[in-house]
Amino acid sequence: MESLRVELGSRSYPIHIGAGIVDRVPLYEAVLGRGTAAIVTNDVVAPLYLARVQKALEAAGARVVPVVVPDGEQAKSWPTLDRVFEELLAARCGRDSVLVALGGGVVGDLAGFAAAVYQRGVPFIQVPTTLLAQVDSSVGGKTAINHERGKNMIGAFHQPRAVISDVRTLDTLPQRELKAGLAEVIKHGLALDRAFTEWLEENMERLLQREPVALGYAIRRCCELKAAVVAEDERESGVRALLNFGHTFGHAIEAGAGYGRWLHGEAVAAGMVMAAELSQRVGLLDKGDVTRVRSLIGRAGLPTAGPPIPAEHLVELMAVDKKAARGELRFVLLQGVGKSSLRGGIGAPLIHEAIVAAVQ
Amino acid sequence: MESLRVELGSRSYPIHIGAGIVDRVPLYEAVLGRGTAAIVTNDVVAPLYLARVQKALEAAGARVVPVVVPDGEQAKSWPTLDRVFEELLAARCGRDSVLVALGGGVVGDLAGFAAAVYQRGVPFIQVPTTLLAQVDSSVGGKTAINHERGKNMIGAFHQPRAVISDVRTLDTLPQRELKAGLAEVIKHGLALDRAFTEWLEENMERLLQREPVALGYAIRRCCELKAAVVAEDERESGVRALLNFGHTFGHAIEAGAGYGRWLHGEAVAAGMVMAAELSQRVGLLDKGDVTRVRSLIGRAGLPTAGPPIPAEHLVELMAVDKKAARGELRFVLLQGVGKSSLRGGIGAPLIHEAIVAAVQ
Repeated sequence: MESLRVELGSRSYPIHIGAGIVDRVPLYEAVLGRGTAAIVTNDVVAPLYLARVQKALEAAGARVVPVVVPDGEQAKSWPTLDRVFEELLAARCGRDSVLVALGGGVVGDLAGFAAAVYQRGVPFIQVPTTLLAQVDSSVGGKTAINHERGKNMIGAFHQPRAVISDVRTLDTLPQRELKAGLAEVIKHGLALDRAFTEWLEENMERLLQREPVALGYAIRRCCELKAAVVAEDERESGVRALLNFGHTFGHAIEAGAGYGRWLHGEAVAAGMVMAAELSQRVGLLDKGDVTRVRSLIGRAGLPTAGPPIPAEHLVELMAVDKKAARGELRFVLLQGVGKSSLRGGIGAPLIHEAIVAAVQ
Repeated sequence: MESLRVELGSRSYPIHIGAGIVDRVPLYEAVLGRGTAAIVTNDVVAPLYLARVQKALEAAGARVVPVVVPDGEQAKSWPTLDRVFEELLAARCGRDSVLVALGGGVVGDLAGFAAAVYQRGVPFIQVPTTLLAQVDSSVGGKTAINHERGKNMIGAFHQPRAVISDVRTLDTLPQRELKAGLAEVIKHGLALDRAFTEWLEENMERLLQREPVALGYAIRRCCELKAAVVAEDERESGVRALLNFGHTFGHAIEAGAGYGRWLHGEAVAAGMVMAAELSQRVGLLDKGDVTRVRSLIGRAGLPTAGPPIPAEHLVELMAVDKKAARGELRFVLLQGVGKSSLRGGIGAPLIHEAIVAAVQ
């Protein structure tokens, strides 16, 4: 097992990465209070890991309340969140309770936001069981639910007390979800780290084959990159925005296709190609690098173009995206592989062109 | 105009108290960003003050989006909160927006919580227009909505950037609401400040007559007391809990009567009598002081007993109250007038007795 640390003063916390650690009692013991541990998970993950995590929490001295929600992006919504509150209140979980988010990005975002606002805030532990959650969404304290008018519109910054990433839980991950997680891995490389991008270009096949050593390295490197960014800019007033590379387009793709039709990682993959095309059109990136971005994403088995939605409609969907300020859209653009910056003031025609170019 | 300050490091903020300051432009200018100012108010306050505040915000350079919700405690609920989000998103309010809570405690709690979670958090300004909000709820950053199973169950600590308390807005306050506000004034005295309690005993008639000097003094003294407590214990892990004097009983009264039937201050008034009776029963307070508490509350025209609900039912309702931890109820009890402490481990029979005693 390896442990990194997200440095945030009194809110610092460890990220543990290892094989078979999902039920390691001391990792939970270190964080639990006197109260109840409520495990929030979904109906796909529950049969696989709920019993083991419950046993570990009980061994650590907690009363355990399991809350099982439906699988899928639809669960990032008010009705599901309200059901979590209902079950916590019915089980008389007090302010000294700890929530445990056991599952992928949806469960992490939902349970994390529940923890942020239940009785004005209780601690929580992230136990990510998908590649996407292990490399990205479980780290950094962004929590949210979706609103009909846009993704992640209602949420909070609420840091976990610990992240427990068991790479063995990826054994049960469907291949489509593994690939979706690779999109966020690629994002870390393209936006922040040229050397890591080169490593990905050389090792993509090993990752798709789920070689444990390769997966372990990719997870650790993403967590290192993300921990450094979050430590510098917890609330995304600066450098943290670079982790949204591909996401402005990606969120519009998810909304346009209907939440849940496209996996988040798939939408981000196509969104990164669009962002690269846009970067080239504003003169920041040369054509060779656009091809390189497209090729890496394609080799991960990910889409390099959006769904059949008119480009005008995607532009409209982006306008209300949370990165929109006074109607001006801002994009994370590449200035080369591994280097990015946030840009505003880009005209609709160029954005439109970039979307269309991604299809070709 | 007088200005106090709540000292919370980088989250410190001023409380301005004065006559006719609700539309004083520089007070808003000091806080607004580049974005939109969304005024959240209710349909009773809007006809009285919305136009003036809107004009001041526009003079301060903001685009203004008014959001008018229904009056009453029922508005502290998910459906109303969702409507606020809907209107903010429809008006394309970005992350650089500022919310302005114009109204009483319900509007402040609702708009404050909306600000806490809209796009993971935007700043907000409290412009309280009721006595209860001016002396208590607008200060300290507690925000929340209610859940069917309990009051303030879903919320956040989110400090405002400024509090603008115009005592002239109390001119339009119904007498019943003025009295409800006096309950929280009395609470500050009984729980924290013997001298202020004595002042209240001497000046209650002046407050009921709305003498501006008396009201101004009471508001300032409550804000001073509360600002000191919040600066010491923002998240209520210690001394801040003393401000819940009367509230454990009070919340149960509100829930038992049906939200909105009893005003919050009325329920707290009866709750303070019950808490005093309980204090006497555990040997902390002598009978003379119980009589003194009851008399002061009665002289403010406030109820000294709860609604006709069986005491057993009130005890049951308290069990899920947010102060409940592992099933143990805790109460703020008086050890004399102006001195209080938090106590647990009190048996149901004594609690039951205190409720019944309040009726007599």
